[in-house]
Amino acid sequence: MKPSAGEVFSGDDAAVLIPPAGPLLLAIDLVVEGVHFDLSLGSLADAGWKAIAVNVSDIAAMGGRPLHVVAGVSAPPETDLDEVTDGLLEACDAYGVALVGGDLTSGDRLVLSVAITGTCDGRNAVLRSGARPGDVIWVTGMLGASAAGLELLRGAAGAVAGSAASGAGGADEDAPPGSAGGTPSELVRAYRRPAARVREGSAAAASSATAMIDVSDGLSQDLDHIATESRVGIRLTSVPIVTGATLEQALGGGEDYELVFTAPEDADVVEAFKTAGLEAPIRIGACSEDATERLLGGEALRVSGWEHSFRRTR
Amino acid sequence: MKPSAGEVFSGDDAAVLIPPAGPLLLAIDLVVEGVHFDLSLGSLADAGWKAIAVNVSDIAAMGGRPLHVVAGVSAPPETDLDEVTDGLLEACDAYGVALVGGDLTSGDRLVLSVAITGTCDGRNAVLRSGARPGDVIWVTGMLGASAAGLELLRGAAGAVAGSAASGAGGADEDAPPGSAGGTPSELVRAYRRPAARVREGSAAAASSATAMIDVSDGLSQDLDHIATESRVGIRLTSVPIVTGATLEQALGGGEDYELVFTAPEDADVVEAFKTAGLEAPIRIGACSEDATERLLGGEALRVSGWEHSFRRTR
Repeated sequence: MKPSAGEVFSGDDAAVLIPPAGPLLLAIDLVVEGVHFDLSLGSLADAGWKAIAVNVSDIAAMGGRPLHVVAGVSAPPETDLDEVTDGLLEACDAYGVALVGGDLTSGDRLVLSVAITGTCDGRNAVLRSGARPGDVIWVTGMLGASAAGLELLRGAAGAVAGSAASGAGGADEDAPPGSAGGTPSELVRAYRRPAARVREGSAAAASSATAMIDVSDGLSQDLDHIATESRVGIRLTSVPIVTGATLEQALGGGEDYELVFTAPEDADVVEAFKTAGLEAPIRIGACSEDATERLLGGEALRVSGWEHSFRRTR
Repeated sequence: MKPSAGEVFSGDDAAVLIPPAGPLLLAIDLVVEGVHFDLSLGSLADAGWKAIAVNVSDIAAMGGRPLHVVAGVSAPPETDLDEVTDGLLEACDAYGVALVGGDLTSGDRLVLSVAITGTCDGRNAVLRSGARPGDVIWVTGMLGASAAGLELLRGAAGAVAGSAASGAGGADEDAPPGSAGGTPSELVRAYRRPAARVREGSAAAASSATAMIDVSDGLSQDLDHIATESRVGIRLTSVPIVTGATLEQALGGGEDYELVFTAPEDADVVEAFKTAGLEAPIRIGACSEDATERLLGGEALRVSGWEHSFRRTR
């Protein structure tokens, strides 16, 4: 993407940007080798893609449209930086985002750090804190694909070192009846090249979503963030599990980057998605009055994971 | 710093910000353990400070005022994150910047990644590309302090493991006559807690600076960026070397974060700095017509270092 008049992209101390009027969204996400990706299970370009996609997903989860990214790369000297850049730029192209600057430094592990700006184009941002008791909980797609893809890749790597996962099967045995979706190659792609749901986030915002988050840590933990910030309880009636994944992967695997959002019972959610040319989201439960409640069916929903914030611990 | 009405800082997928009208500055800089700092020679809080200061310096080098930062931290599990956060927040306070979001993840080396926004408050940003032949070259302070401080710390660490560098002397022997400035503790502080020159950058912009950059890689390399982007030559007549540093440290050590800028001969640079209550910058040379020229006195100025950009190499 080219700078507009008055804009300056890469090559100076900072980029000079002319964002649209109104509030600016700003987020940062790191993608670390050995934590968020494994170079024996995906390429450097996949890592670059992921670093952009997870940031675009943060903007999508606000109901926003991504504008600009800056990318910091710390890499061992032998790293093929062109391949990393290819992945960064492929994802930028896919989401209509401009890569406007960066920082490149050495390091003994590959770390990709991307910061992103976005706009809500005059609408209010959809926060995590706006859900109300009685609101319906929706998710934009089936869950567990990324975790199942990772397991397929690990199995394949174990069976034939360095081979692709195309022949890896067997994980289907764990899939509950009624689940739908992923072929092995789709699952592997969900891990290597996760998709950010920008249009879905925008449709959710247009359909009066009261709270929204992207499924990065896992549905149970991400819903817990909404519940905690909104002071509501959670009663799930179902979990949409992609074919080839387990309930545990759908609930706790994370990195699916589907959006989970809440909206009043009378909001025309399905219609808003249809109008935008999108598949209808899936209704998975409702928010309750009791802010401590976390239920799936009649049973306790286990919430696990870890905090990503700068709150002090002492 | 507190969010204004309509703003949301940490705790959601992205921060919601209301920047002042006009162009937005955006930059990112990584600070990596073992590359940009050494935890045996400085504290975790120093590393946090540095990650903010180097980013603020990027905004200063545009003549801008820093607004918001987001910080990504990848850290080994045993890291005292409160100490890192203390350093981040101390620097944010010092420069009037709001820490509005972050991402925290594990990793086997400490990597701090900060992205920053800024504004030029209605003035044009000062790019690297605007210098013209005949423009005077100025620098906002003496150079080499950070490199000399690092050498003192390394010497002290070698002499008494874990001791402070307060007793380390001897480096003064290398200082040419006429240099001024750093006591050992000032040099050590320049390495551990570099200062960003925001007010100086603003005064330079106000005094018709045509090009500006911060001295992060070393004067010779950073001036080369201005020369290359502006298609002018460089004729240095002097290099201001802090007491305790060598010419080599002043020219190539980097991390001083002084600003080097160019301005027409008739610009009232000294007056603009005086008006802002700042020490006068130091005149070090002029830009020439021959875009290939890089001279210090009558001799060739050696330019060394490496590229920090996403230009493709193939």
